[in-house]
Amino acid sequence: MKVCRRTTFNAAHRLFNTEWSDEKNLEVFGKCSNPNYHGHNYVLETWIEGEIDTETGYVIDLKKLKELVNEEVGERFDHRNLNLDCPEFKELKPSAENIAVVIYNLLRPKLESKYKLVIRLWETENNVVEYNGE
Amino acid sequence: MKVCRRTTFNAAHRLFNTEWSDEKNLEVFGKCSNPNYHGHNYVLETWIEGEIDTETGYVIDLKKLKELVNEEVGERFDHRNLNLDCPEFKELKPSAENIAVVIYNLLRPKLESKYKLVIRLWETENNVVEYNGE
Amino acid sequence: MKVCRRTTFNAAHRLFNTEWSDEKNLEVFGKCSNPNYHGHNYVLETWIEGEIDTETGYVIDLKKLKELVNEEVGERFDHRNLNLDCPEFKELKPSAENIAVVIYNLLRPKLESKYKLVIRLWETENNVVEYNGE
Amino acid sequence: MKVCRRTTFNAAHRLFNTEWSDEKNLEVFGKCSNPNYHGHNYVLETWIEGEIDTETGYVIDLKKLKELVNEEVGERFDHRNLNLDCPEFKELKPSAENIAVVIYNLLRPKLESKYKLVIRLWETENNVVEYNGE
Amino acid sequence: MKVCRRTTFNAAHRLFNTEWSDEKNLEVFGKCSNPNYHGHNYVLETWIEGEIDTETGYVIDLKKLKELVNEEVGERFDHRNLNLDCPEFKELKPSAENIAVVIYNLLRPKLESKYKLVIRLWETENNVVEYNGE
Amino acid sequence: MKVCRRTTFNAAHRLFNTEWSDEKNLEVFGKCSNPNYHGHNYVLETWIEGEIDTETGYVIDLKKLKELVNEEVGERFDHRNLNLDCPEFKELKPSAENIAVVIYNLLRPKLESKYKLVIRLWETENNVVEYNGE
Repeated sequence: MKVCRRTTFNAAHRLFNTEWSDEKNLEVFGKCSNPNYHGHNYVLETWIEGEIDTETGYVIDLKKLKELVNEEVGERFDHRNLNLDCPEFKELKPSAENIAVVIYNLLRPKLESKYKLVIRLWETENNVVEYNGE
Repeated sequence: MKVCRRTTFNAAHRLFNTEWSDEKNLEVFGKCSNPNYHGHNYVLETWIEGEIDTETGYVIDLKKLKELVNEEVGERFDHRNLNLDCPEFKELKPSAENIAVVIYNLLRPKLESKYKLVIRLWETENNVVEYNGE
Repeated sequence: MKVCRRTTFNAAHRLFNTEWSDEKNLEVFGKCSNPNYHGHNYVLETWIEGEIDTETGYVIDLKKLKELVNEEVGERFDHRNLNLDCPEFKELKPSAENIAVVIYNLLRPKLESKYKLVIRLWETENNVVEYNGE
Repeated sequence: MKVCRRTTFNAAHRLFNTEWSDEKNLEVFGKCSNPNYHGHNYVLETWIEGEIDTETGYVIDLKKLKELVNEEVGERFDHRNLNLDCPEFKELKPSAENIAVVIYNLLRPKLESKYKLVIRLWETENNVVEYNGE
Repeated sequence: MKVCRRTTFNAAHRLFNTEWSDEKNLEVFGKCSNPNYHGHNYVLETWIEGEIDTETGYVIDLKKLKELVNEEVGERFDHRNLNLDCPEFKELKPSAENIAVVIYNLLRPKLESKYKLVIRLWETENNVVEYNGE
Repeated sequence: MKVCRRTTFNAAHRLFNTEWSDEKNLEVFGKCSNPNYHGHNYVLETWIEGEIDTETGYVIDLKKLKELVNEEVGERFDHRNLNLDCPEFKELKPSAENIAVVIYNLLRPKLESKYKLVIRLWETENNVVEYNGE
């Protein structure tokens, strides 16, 4: 049985490889390399797989999952500049893929090991990524 | 090849463990334990996995799948109180997880064994569960 | 300039005219008259019309509007049975239309008179009503 | 890590088995067998599974994936009659399932073999199919 | 008080001015002039403005409105070719604008004169038109 | 008759009143005043009101409207920092309200005077503003 809580956060970011010239960055990342940043309304789906607890009928209390996601993800990234404000992206490019990995790694240790975790992250209504830790 | 039909039903429910005190129920289920019930617009995705029939180009006729889902799920649960009107939830708490299990068990025997079945149920636009019978 | 904040609440209700027979109620309200209630995920759009404040760039602070809507509407109706728990619907049938009127009348006195108010309420993804106080 | 690009195309089609009588076609395909065609706004999700490239933070550049999908799918099927204009459906019935298979077979050879490919195709907001090549 | 019922229909169409050359048609209508037609999933919002009936709490019974729309619009246009199957578009180009006018004119005489009617029609998720009879 | 084209752009911004202290800015704008910016996926609905042209069936060619919006709005604001990159917001706070006014003023002179123009701008899925030039 899998369950999911959907949440959102709004952040600025920029894609840029410091080892490349500005020309190469523009060629590869296009408008995403704009030095003054742009931003997104990220939509995060946190999927948990586990057994139903017969006492509650829940796999996990989705209210508590929401609180956990808000503490670990919302307070870190909402209304922030991922490149400048967030040490997680000091070295790592804040692509949707890497943001999903970072979120997975933030939530995984906070969840009991009996649960499987999958992160699905929408960067725009047309772009989405999914990561299960492998 | 997987195919899916999306349908909806509207129902009232309440989450309550009869072996617990009212205080414990309120602590665990919060507003979901309100004695006079609340309700949801459930969105049901019925996913079928199978081979394409070369005569029709279909895995299964989605119009017939829609009729089956309406007979087995819509007529049972739409505009009902899951706790009071539906014997399926006499003993079982009508959490989204358990509703998905009940729907799976209602549809599974009505479908040919060559098909795999997955139930995805949205309780709100932010909460969703998925069950494949395992 | 118009601005809007979208919020949601989940509630149970029943449509029933106490001056009519059960047969007439069933004929007019169909499944909506089920004595044990059913429910919906209501989506509420609160639209405010006014001038932009040059100091803030806002017509109204949407965070404060959200808090007002949660206090006046969310705390009253979310996870409630509109017929049984809410004195507003003691005499009044909780149709989407009447719920919109009640919400309008709750919010109107809490907003400065310089603002126009329009309430748009989705009962399902296919049914929606709109009320501007007239 | 999986990533997806969502695109759309609008096309006419008709479901009809040339080996059957008109009566049998009507019985099986219903309104979908209308001789003058009907149409859909197809929504295509192209899912790619692979490793993150550390230089870019991407699994695949979604702008390039979008261009590939537009070349291979958009230019072939958008604003076309699938039965009359598209040789891919000369013999094959243009059901959502078969359209997904055709799109998979068009895109698969254009993608590096290190990538897994899954096609998800929405025919309407209620009907969706998914194909992973198996 | 305004109320709305959302419905859908799927149809093929083509935009073509018979008084123009093929070149001019292609120049003005682009891919929309493809001689073999293309198609859309049209989403229709039927808005009615009127007073709340105190006996029912309804402006109009949305189940009955749905039936009326299905009779007048669904049975005429769903799974049809608007140019070939529908006499309404013998002379009239089936642009979204003209389809909205035709639907307005079909529904207006079937509704009591006390109601105002507005038709909103989505041709794609990005194109929408609205007509109030004026 | 009204017609609308929906488009999107992604941008970074920050709300800050230079005449206020940092404390007052934080108090009024909250997380929106973060000095390193955050961002949004803006969804823009450009509504045009006018008469149907009988030669085309169009009020305005929505493909041309899309091109106009991309030239005037997309090229200016997409993947930009509204505060730093866009002279329009040198003095003006880039609230959703003000962005809508700026977009209205950019498009109005490019449209024939026979058309009425309304701008609807979604900043998030829950916040939306609308401006008609008055």
